[in-house]
Amino acid sequence: MSEDTHAVNIAKAAKAAFEASQLIPSSERVQALHEIRKELEAVKDQILTANKKDLEHAQAEVDAGRMSASLLSRLDLGKGDKWDSMLQGVTDVANLPDPTGQVSYASELDDGLELYRVSCPIGVLLVIFEARPEVVVNIAALAIKSGNAAILKGGKESNETAQLLSQAIQSALSKTSIPSTYIQSIQTRAEVSALLEQDRYIDLVIPRGSNSLVRSIQNSTRIPVMGHADGLCAVYLDKAADPAKAIRVAVDSKVDYPAACNAAETLIVHENLLDTVWPEVAKALIARGVQLRCDARTLASLTARDIILNVQPSTPEDYSTEHLSLTISVLSVPSLSAAISHINSHSSHHTESIVTEDEQAASIFCRGVDSAGTFVNASTRFADGFRYGFGTEVGISTGRIHARGPVGLEGLVIYKYMLRSKGSEGHVVGEFGTGEGKKQFKHAKIDTTSAPF
Amino acid sequence: MSEDTHAVNIAKAAKAAFEASQLIPSSERVQALHEIRKELEAVKDQILTANKKDLEHAQAEVDAGRMSASLLSRLDLGKGDKWDSMLQGVTDVANLPDPTGQVSYASELDDGLELYRVSCPIGVLLVIFEARPEVVVNIAALAIKSGNAAILKGGKESNETAQLLSQAIQSALSKTSIPSTYIQSIQTRAEVSALLEQDRYIDLVIPRGSNSLVRSIQNSTRIPVMGHADGLCAVYLDKAADPAKAIRVAVDSKVDYPAACNAAETLIVHENLLDTVWPEVAKALIARGVQLRCDARTLASLTARDIILNVQPSTPEDYSTEHLSLTISVLSVPSLSAAISHINSHSSHHTESIVTEDEQAASIFCRGVDSAGTFVNASTRFADGFRYGFGTEVGISTGRIHARGPVGLEGLVIYKYMLRSKGSEGHVVGEFGTGEGKKQFKHAKIDTTSAPF
Repeated sequence: MSEDTHAVNIAKAAKAAFEASQLIPSSERVQALHEIRKELEAVKDQILTANKKDLEHAQAEVDAGRMSASLLSRLDLGKGDKWDSMLQGVTDVANLPDPTGQVSYASELDDGLELYRVSCPIGVLLVIFEARPEVVVNIAALAIKSGNAAILKGGKESNETAQLLSQAIQSALSKTSIPSTYIQSIQTRAEVSALLEQDRYIDLVIPRGSNSLVRSIQNSTRIPVMGHADGLCAVYLDKAADPAKAIRVAVDSKVDYPAACNAAETLIVHENLLDTVWPEVAKALIARGVQLRCDARTLASLTARDIILNVQPSTPEDYSTEHLSLTISVLSVPSLSAAISHINSHSSHHTESIVTEDEQAASIFCRGVDSAGTFVNASTRFADGFRYGFGTEVGISTGRIHARGPVGLEGLVIYKYMLRSKGSEGHVVGEFGTGEGKKQFKHAKIDTTSAPF
Repeated sequence: MSEDTHAVNIAKAAKAAFEASQLIPSSERVQALHEIRKELEAVKDQILTANKKDLEHAQAEVDAGRMSASLLSRLDLGKGDKWDSMLQGVTDVANLPDPTGQVSYASELDDGLELYRVSCPIGVLLVIFEARPEVVVNIAALAIKSGNAAILKGGKESNETAQLLSQAIQSALSKTSIPSTYIQSIQTRAEVSALLEQDRYIDLVIPRGSNSLVRSIQNSTRIPVMGHADGLCAVYLDKAADPAKAIRVAVDSKVDYPAACNAAETLIVHENLLDTVWPEVAKALIARGVQLRCDARTLASLTARDIILNVQPSTPEDYSTEHLSLTISVLSVPSLSAAISHINSHSSHHTESIVTEDEQAASIFCRGVDSAGTFVNASTRFADGFRYGFGTEVGISTGRIHARGPVGLEGLVIYKYMLRSKGSEGHVVGEFGTGEGKKQFKHAKIDTTSAPF
């Protein structure tokens, strides 16, 4: 069987499973999540043994200099409480409110003609991610909870582990009324390429990984892509910045977890602060091991004060670079609007923060900066589904439609319009209009959050 | 200047106009709409003269057999109350509630740390449409009301008219604080191709036209596309259908306006009705001039009754064809689930209706049919933004993300997260966690629909 035929079969099976599942009450999806947890507990030993194989392969790659040690460490499912928190995650998702079946608009169009806009799953998701094997379980849980079928492709480094996790999920599903092809896994890039052609059966692609992964997928499919890209976030120290807040927010945004997409990569300093707040912020960053890449004016201010260790001149590229490490690019600006303009042209529209005591500057920054998160006196690191209170997150979207910023279960649903005539004759459009004897629409709001059928 | 450079300049100017507009209160956008109406009234004569030129060119095309008479008639801006309703449309949009600045989620994450999810425009829209020149004004009004900049490309048939309409819009904008490059028009396909590359500046493409237009655009850009495709809608006559409702709903769905995307193209008949309800429905359709394309069983039933005029056997292609005329494809099914299965594999997921008195069948149909609209005892023609009570519509989306079904102003906005620390020290993530002395998130709902800043 060719890759293409294989891919069509997988995609068709996913769509058929999705369609069948639409008639199953959502409570059975919750039950399925409990079954999955049970099954994972039952086959824990086999999975951790498979994980050891992945780790051995990975260790050989690290030894040969073909893989980083940090990637290796993310593969380890037996480390610390990783296994337990993976299982707890399934239970947590099961316990979240049902994102489907919620009414967001209800209107009586005419006597006995009721319209309901009801949230429902999107359909079939193709999720492509890298490395960490537990993502298989996370994503499967989110898909099942929101009523979507999913096809998952993990990194090849975690292949052995991911296959057993997928088997456990399918085996658990086979004990429920949810079709076992609801969650399927694929292993090869060729399968991904073939599936990206299947826009008839696949409704949304979610790549979780590097910017280059996201872009390459966007370029090769007409299926909508919900981009979970990296972040190039900035902190702006306004001329009205409180010095202590400036230090706290700049340091936390950079050093709390430098490899995260919500860590700051750029620090923008109002020129009025060059001889006051800026040197203190620089010292605090340097004390935490941060390397500064400075423009001429921020550099001169430090040189004049003999702050030279871990300080070097920036290049233009630095301001478009996600360092993802303890390095930060610094520039000075003459005004708030120059800061906003730099951010809008350089950032990845993820999250930006202003430090200021000036309410008007805060307001202008929050409206003028075109990013998914605009913060005041708070670390960029707050941009996260758990911290926002969503319970869990599918990822963080830097796209502009459907979902933006940290995406919770809400990002995995859409809605459909259900229209119900309760009249004795049914309802037809021809009776409405402006002529004599024609009916007018009533458009009376119905106050409900759940559909009555 | 090459098309590419030209396109980059247009796209950049649109993005700059969008960014500048974010600091302008939304009341000024409403004011701009009133100015546009005034300006259009002032230059009405010039516009109608230009429209006559377009009509003359089009008449020559019709005479040469290169254009349909129905397309010609849609170009005529002086016909009936078309001009007045175009102007009234601008006022109506101005008077709709502001879709921006609405809070859909607000939470106190910690003492003095408040998160608001606030609706905001998407950014820069590229809207590509065919023929009718007044769409320039409709779309410009919707874009301005929702705070989006827009680049518009109309059909070449209405070029003269569209250019003057665009000039009037720009001239009106120049009297306001909204940048005049907020709404720009382009004329050529080469410009469209070049703009589809500009994903850095353009955030959403909205093609309004044929399925082939939508697909060709989806294939040639990585910018998200909100598809406003045609519709292949079905009416299903369930075994528990009320005969009178069956006739009314089938006839209205087909004949009220056959060229519309929400007209029915397929009629599905439960086999129990073949010798009862079906012949009556067929007669009613035929009496309204409808041509029936029937499968073997629905055909046999009619032939047995000498109902043969305007009745012919169907081909498999008929069930995937949008007739957009007084033709309907008919098939019989043995069950509700066969009807759902036919719809899910053949329809364009626009709108489908069941005629039934069986509450359970209605519920299964509404959940099991995977379309933007699932109706009970009501004509598919109700699928429309005005009838739904949205005041106006951008189009009808058969996509699965962001917006589905008739799309009102809500479909032109997204949201951003604004996080505000009011604490005396600012807020940092490093203070939260599970260790000793670490803070926990509060996640207390804030009850508000508007952001306090």
